[in-house]
Amino acid sequence: MRDQPKVIVDPFFRQMGEIFAPADAQRLADTVDVVWGRDEPMELDAFRDELRDAFAVVTGGWRYGDVLADAAALRAILTVSGGWPPELDYATCAARGIRVLSAAPAFAAAVAEMSLGLALACTRDIAEGDRAFRAGEEKWLHEGVVDSYMLHGARVGFVGFGNIGRALRDLIAPFRCELVAFDPWLTDAYLRSEGVAPMPLDRLLETSRVIFVLATPTSENRALLSRELLELIEPRATLVLVSRAHVVDFDALTDLVLAGRFKAGIDVFPEEPFDADHPIRRAEGAVLSAHRAGVVREALLEIGERVVDDLEALVRGLPPRRMQAVEPELASRYVRTTTLVVDPVGTSE
Amino acid sequence: MRDQPKVIVDPFFRQMGEIFAPADAQRLADTVDVVWGRDEPMELDAFRDELRDAFAVVTGGWRYGDVLADAAALRAILTVSGGWPPELDYATCAARGIRVLSAAPAFAAAVAEMSLGLALACTRDIAEGDRAFRAGEEKWLHEGVVDSYMLHGARVGFVGFGNIGRALRDLIAPFRCELVAFDPWLTDAYLRSEGVAPMPLDRLLETSRVIFVLATPTSENRALLSRELLELIEPRATLVLVSRAHVVDFDALTDLVLAGRFKAGIDVFPEEPFDADHPIRRAEGAVLSAHRAGVVREALLEIGERVVDDLEALVRGLPPRRMQAVEPELASRYVRTTTLVVDPVGTSE
Amino acid sequence: MRDQPKVIVDPFFRQMGEIFAPADAQRLADTVDVVWGRDEPMELDAFRDELRDAFAVVTGGWRYGDVLADAAALRAILTVSGGWPPELDYATCAARGIRVLSAAPAFAAAVAEMSLGLALACTRDIAEGDRAFRAGEEKWLHEGVVDSYMLHGARVGFVGFGNIGRALRDLIAPFRCELVAFDPWLTDAYLRSEGVAPMPLDRLLETSRVIFVLATPTSENRALLSRELLELIEPRATLVLVSRAHVVDFDALTDLVLAGRFKAGIDVFPEEPFDADHPIRRAEGAVLSAHRAGVVREALLEIGERVVDDLEALVRGLPPRRMQAVEPELASRYVRTTTLVVDPVGTSE
Amino acid sequence: MRDQPKVIVDPFFRQMGEIFAPADAQRLADTVDVVWGRDEPMELDAFRDELRDAFAVVTGGWRYGDVLADAAALRAILTVSGGWPPELDYATCAARGIRVLSAAPAFAAAVAEMSLGLALACTRDIAEGDRAFRAGEEKWLHEGVVDSYMLHGARVGFVGFGNIGRALRDLIAPFRCELVAFDPWLTDAYLRSEGVAPMPLDRLLETSRVIFVLATPTSENRALLSRELLELIEPRATLVLVSRAHVVDFDALTDLVLAGRFKAGIDVFPEEPFDADHPIRRAEGAVLSAHRAGVVREALLEIGERVVDDLEALVRGLPPRRMQAVEPELASRYVRTTTLVVDPVGTSE
Repeated sequence: MRDQPKVIVDPFFRQMGEIFAPADAQRLADTVDVVWGRDEPMELDAFRDELRDAFAVVTGGWRYGDVLADAAALRAILTVSGGWPPELDYATCAARGIRVLSAAPAFAAAVAEMSLGLALACTRDIAEGDRAFRAGEEKWLHEGVVDSYMLHGARVGFVGFGNIGRALRDLIAPFRCELVAFDPWLTDAYLRSEGVAPMPLDRLLETSRVIFVLATPTSENRALLSRELLELIEPRATLVLVSRAHVVDFDALTDLVLAGRFKAGIDVFPEEPFDADHPIRRAEGAVLSAHRAGVVREALLEIGERVVDDLEALVRGLPPRRMQAVEPELASRYVRTTTLVVDPVGTSE
Repeated sequence: MRDQPKVIVDPFFRQMGEIFAPADAQRLADTVDVVWGRDEPMELDAFRDELRDAFAVVTGGWRYGDVLADAAALRAILTVSGGWPPELDYATCAARGIRVLSAAPAFAAAVAEMSLGLALACTRDIAEGDRAFRAGEEKWLHEGVVDSYMLHGARVGFVGFGNIGRALRDLIAPFRCELVAFDPWLTDAYLRSEGVAPMPLDRLLETSRVIFVLATPTSENRALLSRELLELIEPRATLVLVSRAHVVDFDALTDLVLAGRFKAGIDVFPEEPFDADHPIRRAEGAVLSAHRAGVVREALLEIGERVVDDLEALVRGLPPRRMQAVEPELASRYVRTTTLVVDPVGTSE
Repeated sequence: MRDQPKVIVDPFFRQMGEIFAPADAQRLADTVDVVWGRDEPMELDAFRDELRDAFAVVTGGWRYGDVLADAAALRAILTVSGGWPPELDYATCAARGIRVLSAAPAFAAAVAEMSLGLALACTRDIAEGDRAFRAGEEKWLHEGVVDSYMLHGARVGFVGFGNIGRALRDLIAPFRCELVAFDPWLTDAYLRSEGVAPMPLDRLLETSRVIFVLATPTSENRALLSRELLELIEPRATLVLVSRAHVVDFDALTDLVLAGRFKAGIDVFPEEPFDADHPIRRAEGAVLSAHRAGVVREALLEIGERVVDDLEALVRGLPPRRMQAVEPELASRYVRTTTLVVDPVGTSE
Repeated sequence: MRDQPKVIVDPFFRQMGEIFAPADAQRLADTVDVVWGRDEPMELDAFRDELRDAFAVVTGGWRYGDVLADAAALRAILTVSGGWPPELDYATCAARGIRVLSAAPAFAAAVAEMSLGLALACTRDIAEGDRAFRAGEEKWLHEGVVDSYMLHGARVGFVGFGNIGRALRDLIAPFRCELVAFDPWLTDAYLRSEGVAPMPLDRLLETSRVIFVLATPTSENRALLSRELLELIEPRATLVLVSRAHVVDFDALTDLVLAGRFKAGIDVFPEEPFDADHPIRRAEGAVLSAHRAGVVREALLEIGERVVDDLEALVRGLPPRRMQAVEPELASRYVRTTTLVVDPVGTSE
């Protein structure tokens, strides 16, 4: 339509069809004048040209360089990756009133669900019991639960408490756990208002039965979970790592799980794909997953749904409420930890 | 103490220490005059002798024969197995006002938690992904989730909706699923009042993404889930079997899971221990567990806690509310399906 | 129909149309062979005659005398009053396997809702503020809330914790109150399992901001809330009385509310109708209601719905689960406190 | 302390002691270097002087004129009124990266609680029943509930769905109502994600049993609820007005309630104080409150708590999360509807 604002839709590395269900693709076309809208990356010259009078950009990252000066009509940048592109000039966006929005909330339910599944697979020895059964070495009844324990009523610690943490808290609520959290980007007051007790990291690690590592990788938290801290974890406890391997001393983690000190559900690795001979692959107490928590089909389609929802709001002059707005205090502190060319998904925060 | 009512505590096949935490053992001693209270089975002559003026019996089963006529003071029989002993004369108990109580509710949280864990291990391919990772054959990101789907928002069907079903409904609530149930022992009105929609079994099977088989084994439901019915299950759906293999045509289940028709989390088997060469052990879409859902330590200790809670009530002349009272309409219809000498746990209803 | 079991439906003092919605009346006729089914009380001779082969009796009370010996086929007595008729021989019913069921649960939602409304009318001075406004004496903003306080986060005490208490606990849950309870008919273990902390009555009264008096009247609890105990209630706290005036020293209550010691929402009175000159009618801190908590239309229709639900279960040989089964330990301890000829509603337990 | 950032605290028209509990006052002093911090309004010259190097301003409104140009260090303006001062230059704040925060969330629980109380006072005729009782004209039992109905299961409509709407939705959740909402500032997608069904205003009015009017007054919604629309409300339904009288044709509302067409709980009026002879004061179906929903002591103290919480965040370079950030799309559309000199509380959004 003539009167609809122009929106550049250049989702590469994602594909149109994986993020826009047919109904949402239709809503998108009904709401804005879509430019590009293809799976291949848009050429930079064409992008700059269209940007001059574009109302918004939907993109898989910010690979366009320093072009905001020309974007006179630009009101919003909607990223479909799940993370915050470090190449974007957030200060200029803020000063110019350009909304920068992330699809991160679209992943929260999928990652939370997988996190709970990995936790139960560890606490109740589901993957290990299945392996034993296939090997004809299963142990029945009491003999098969010597290392098992219930999530019900256990203390659960969150390392990082953003979108995923809140979604996971909701999933865990019926288990009546005691919830504690460490997150240096949040105040104690906020954590309490969200129903979790703030706790220093060392104390959290040494007293929680199940620990969820959900921290967004930042310039400040590389190997935050050092060997010294990991050694505090109590025997048979479960650590679930789903945000980024960046935040953990992975060698120390491997040593401790191999030694049977604690169990671990691991979805992210220092390099992806990962060393085929790495010793973690042989750890009895580990449950391993190849970065699969956030990419399930339903989550990807939720990206598109939220993008269209917020374009509808923006076109009507309303604040977007379905994607996550960048917070100026934090924008510069995120780091790229992409480890796999095909998908720099940021599932955290 | 002199004035405390006499209670025979003969928990065999369970052991005192596994069901009574120290604090509960102390409460027990403070509440009643404990007779026997040992791990070995009490001799029948001694049992009959003590029964004459016993106020209650706490037992692992009813292996004492037809002795109720002599039990003039008996007010309650508390079974610690989780099932209803078929040898007990429920009609006489009812006529004489002898409460028959089961520890079944003690298992509900443990079995519900394991059921959810098995379901997520299937829907999100957690056990399969871990096996692939250990074999160095893991698939990363999108390629690793081709058969995965989210529990969030899916239709969930309960086959049987007793203690475990209610506990599982509560755990699943945050996933915002559509809940349907088939249970011939419950009216539609009751099911609706519990927040699940009644549905015929065939329709439930053909429309649910995740199916929990929780039905108590009865004289009427052997192989209730016949081959014909199992074939209705939709592609890639997940069936979780945690009550008793009695209710399923296990050969048909094996064939269909081996053929990749649907996934299955299985905790109970036609014989336990189970055929070491059974083909289900090689089914990619299965997650296998050796009857471990209900025997986790915390559940066994909850038996003792509930036994003492209700003895406290009975001694004060109050109705017991922590164990499950037998329902006369149903008592005669339960069947023993014990498949393993060491533990006739009934986790269902 | 010929093969349907015969059920005497004699709901007097209730009326057929007030408890059976058209759809439930139809279900009733489809389920059983209804005898009588009129608003007038059935003649005793006719009743005895029909009772010989009746499967069940639905009744407003037990005004038939000692006739159970002749009721050879009787399986259930379903009372639509909300209380337990003291004239019924519960021991014989138990020995004969005759289920005695009460419609009490039908009132729980209605009474809980009214209790919360009365509580908020007191804590937020809603009725008093409305009176002032009508008199042209309202106080605006801060000046109008000097005696008001929030229910959010306050300590709430339940005196009696049965059907209504549980329903009210659910309504109050989002207010994140601290919940405590006193109920001599329940064990501490049970109360904790229901999410309320057991507490002695005196301590409950002196520390709760809002106190709900929900205790069923029994032979043991007349004026349980004595003057001495009522004097413990802290200044400006709110007492809501909805079960029966029987359990309170009403003179003391009147004196204390008139003196401005605490506020009170009162739905039940020592005599009903009540003394037209009674001083409680002039107490500023009182909110008065003429026994209206349980009789709202929706609650009465829920009686009929539950009656038919459980007749459906009984006819199919299943346990009834929608009405409340009498508990033999308690049956003899209830007392009749009917204060108004037209409606001996027992809303409690 | 020397190194703490300077914060001007000039809360007038509020008072220091009413918004800062002692513990929060202490936290405030521990977190920032407080300038002024008195009940009286700060002199403008002194304000401008201090503003030059102030890190933040905590204020009851923006009565300082166009002074932002001099505020080189300013990072945040925290308003304690509950509304958005129309005098503030939001565009400059946005361009300069000055956070504008409102204490509106502090009022949500208090107003939601009062709204529920007003609703129950209407639906269950609590205030009217109390008046009748005091006049000796009470009607007992069934006769007293002819116009009453239950909130349980009813359709509830929200006109405006911001902070208060969400808080109220949570309070109403246990009543299992059907929730619908009209809010032109929110997309349908957002409303659905919050668990309420979007509905056009006319349809909402004609089908809801309880209607909560929570809309923020804006330049666009004066008398949004016109006579024509109010006439759509169904007989005996309940309208609760707690945001601002601005959004309702108050004369039409008065006529319809006086005529007995529907009931109304009203906390806000076209002028405050209000015409002493206004006919609404005599309407049987009304429950009247003198703008008391948001000013209860606990809500005012929550303002101070949230202010200090967010100052703690800002001082640490973290995003504030306890107050509400202004949304640039909406800032210019709010209107001042202050009707009472002593307290321009905005309780809405």
